[in-house]
Amino acid sequence: MNSSRYAVDGERLWNTLAALAEIGATPAGGVARVALTDEDRAGRDRFVSWVQELGCSVHIDQMGNLFARREGTDPGRAPVVIGSHLDSQPTGGRYDGAYGVMVGLEVLRVLHDHGIGTAAPVEVVSWTNEEGARFPPAMIGSGVYAGAFGLDEGLEAPGVDGTTLGAELARIGYAGDEPCGAPDGAGRRPIGHYIEPHIEQGPILEAAGVTLGTVTGVQGIRWYDVSIEGQSAHAGSTPMEHRSDAMVAAARLVCEADEIAARRAPQGRATVGTLATGTGSRNTVAGSVELTIDLRHPDAAELEAMHDELLACADGPTFGRQPSAASSGVRQPSRSLPRPQISPIWYSPPIVFDPAVVNAVRDGAIAAGFEPMDITSGAGHDACYVSQVAPTGMLFIPCADGLSHNEAESILPEHATAGAQATLNAVLSLAG
Amino acid sequence: MNSSRYAVDGERLWNTLAALAEIGATPAGGVARVALTDEDRAGRDRFVSWVQELGCSVHIDQMGNLFARREGTDPGRAPVVIGSHLDSQPTGGRYDGAYGVMVGLEVLRVLHDHGIGTAAPVEVVSWTNEEGARFPPAMIGSGVYAGAFGLDEGLEAPGVDGTTLGAELARIGYAGDEPCGAPDGAGRRPIGHYIEPHIEQGPILEAAGVTLGTVTGVQGIRWYDVSIEGQSAHAGSTPMEHRSDAMVAAARLVCEADEIAARRAPQGRATVGTLATGTGSRNTVAGSVELTIDLRHPDAAELEAMHDELLACADGPTFGRQPSAASSGVRQPSRSLPRPQISPIWYSPPIVFDPAVVNAVRDGAIAAGFEPMDITSGAGHDACYVSQVAPTGMLFIPCADGLSHNEAESILPEHATAGAQATLNAVLSLAG
Repeated sequence: MNSSRYAVDGERLWNTLAALAEIGATPAGGVARVALTDEDRAGRDRFVSWVQELGCSVHIDQMGNLFARREGTDPGRAPVVIGSHLDSQPTGGRYDGAYGVMVGLEVLRVLHDHGIGTAAPVEVVSWTNEEGARFPPAMIGSGVYAGAFGLDEGLEAPGVDGTTLGAELARIGYAGDEPCGAPDGAGRRPIGHYIEPHIEQGPILEAAGVTLGTVTGVQGIRWYDVSIEGQSAHAGSTPMEHRSDAMVAAARLVCEADEIAARRAPQGRATVGTLATGTGSRNTVAGSVELTIDLRHPDAAELEAMHDELLACADGPTFGRQPSAASSGVRQPSRSLPRPQISPIWYSPPIVFDPAVVNAVRDGAIAAGFEPMDITSGAGHDACYVSQVAPTGMLFIPCADGLSHNEAESILPEHATAGAQATLNAVLSLAG
Repeated sequence: MNSSRYAVDGERLWNTLAALAEIGATPAGGVARVALTDEDRAGRDRFVSWVQELGCSVHIDQMGNLFARREGTDPGRAPVVIGSHLDSQPTGGRYDGAYGVMVGLEVLRVLHDHGIGTAAPVEVVSWTNEEGARFPPAMIGSGVYAGAFGLDEGLEAPGVDGTTLGAELARIGYAGDEPCGAPDGAGRRPIGHYIEPHIEQGPILEAAGVTLGTVTGVQGIRWYDVSIEGQSAHAGSTPMEHRSDAMVAAARLVCEADEIAARRAPQGRATVGTLATGTGSRNTVAGSVELTIDLRHPDAAELEAMHDELLACADGPTFGRQPSAASSGVRQPSRSLPRPQISPIWYSPPIVFDPAVVNAVRDGAIAAGFEPMDITSGAGHDACYVSQVAPTGMLFIPCADGLSHNEAESILPEHATAGAQATLNAVLSLAG
């Protein structure tokens, strides 16, 4: 049952999402609004004109992060900030990022329409270059804000097209002067609480038939490069027991990594996305294989256990000298599988969001008449960096088939409305 | 105990092998005597001069197959033929092919030195373009001889360097006029029995500590192209039970193919030499994988059973919907692994060599004082084609580390001598 005090206008939100999606629209129904292109500028301009109609002030920091501010009644309170990003992948969808900013806009509109006075100010932010498609890495705007990157590092980030982030920011007129990300955060725009509404970019809510997800945190990630050195050999003249077959060893490792995650369903994840042989002839035993492993879990201890199991497997009896088959009573020479050399190359610890914000989001969803489910984010978001310097939470709505970073990205209007209503409820609760 | 009636001269054989290896010698100790190059011509010329010193007649057929003939006493008998090939890989070894022809030469020398009269003539053959490195496919000379290819097909075979086999044959002066491979074999030089001595090109004899291998036949081969279509998905936001992971399916299939062969050790062989993903990003679940499978067995029924097991596996419970983990009592959605689409693309049936020749080779090895072991060839040889039109057998000697098609190819002088002695014994037995 919907017990929200004020209601969002779902049709207006939907129409606003459609209007924004016209900027950089692609023939296949997606958007190409890549960071700091003319399309990104046009998207920003549209957003600015919309919030100015509501009497909001507009603030731009040195990284081009764009804030729309509606004042509160208590000058001592830091703002409740809603946001995400307006930039997209080169062949991106209409909702990734845009949904969060447009929900923020809808919240501002409801506050404005009803003349609601909040104790804390309410702001809506669009972070610069979340996607990282043009200026790697991803989430540079929020990263500099949170001190994860230096300001110089952010502004000098080279574009894949030979530009730099800072130069392009100036070119499109969004190089602001408000401080962003001094090492000690001095002068950085304060955030009292941060809520990022987003499409799930995964299949969980849709599969569960649930409309809203309360995001409790973000998975930790461990990346590995794996090298397996066997011995290339003739496929015909080399008996199995004389081989040191890097492909069979790789296959065993893929199965083991898969099991390590499957034992921890539904939260554990393991992915071998790339695998290549150094030999590559159909009648030659593979002499070497290189592959990558991506392990994820929202719990740091579980992720470390997965890490330990992976390394233990590489040192264990799955590889090395194999037990003799000896099926027929005839003594066979045993065979040997080359051991994988597993190099950890990156660790991103799990993030646990702020309980006060998580609870406000969950309660907001319940007040909107839904039964939200707790979920962890598998993808990175600006909220990850913001959570390092301010109480943070996120809200997910389903997207069709879990599809994202794809022009076919799709959501339902009623889900869009539900997410906006839950966000409004949470903002009212947090802003007082 | 050596009970051979006549003894080969091991030192002479070794020196002759060394002299031949000077033609096309590479700095790394191998040879580059690629078919129908000037080096191949020089090798042929040297062979011709050696056999002419023994009073042999030289015969060249339309494919350039080169025969040295020592007459017998019985004009009604077809010759006992010893041979292999003088051409090499571009960075080849000194013994692949050359060993068989030089053993034939040593047999002719012994017959000549002792004035031995055989009932059947004795011939030594060097087949044209066994390696196929310059004019694919391999074994064209013996293939045309046996009728597997037409004469036109053989002569028009295009070289990787823009030449044709026939033109290069004429250029080096080895386009003979004796008939080769008429469809009914009419006019083709007759072969009473064919023996091909060769290095093993595999590790079996060396590992067993055995000097001579009686080759009873050649493995059958089945080749497959495999395509696995899953669904690419985000490595973070896609739970294991929502995935259709082509890489995990591929890994399971590699393990299954490996097991199918390992259950048939030491004769069964399975090799996945190539595997490639269509996606290839470390944080994306692989949407598609292509791989190849090579299955081998010397017994046709066993090879067909391996084939059946492979296809049954692809249709079986290893793939498709997986049983639920349900470890914690919590009901988990089950997961699905995409089924491999397995396309058989080639079948080369096993070859069983002629019992009379196989027995003559085995007895010849025993008479030479060795305990030969029966072995099947994993690689193709001219003997494969010749066996289609004449009683055929082969003899293997060990090569270091099973290494071949490599400049480091290496054999021991005592093994070279042993193989020549066994061949001489077999020839004397078959030629009467």
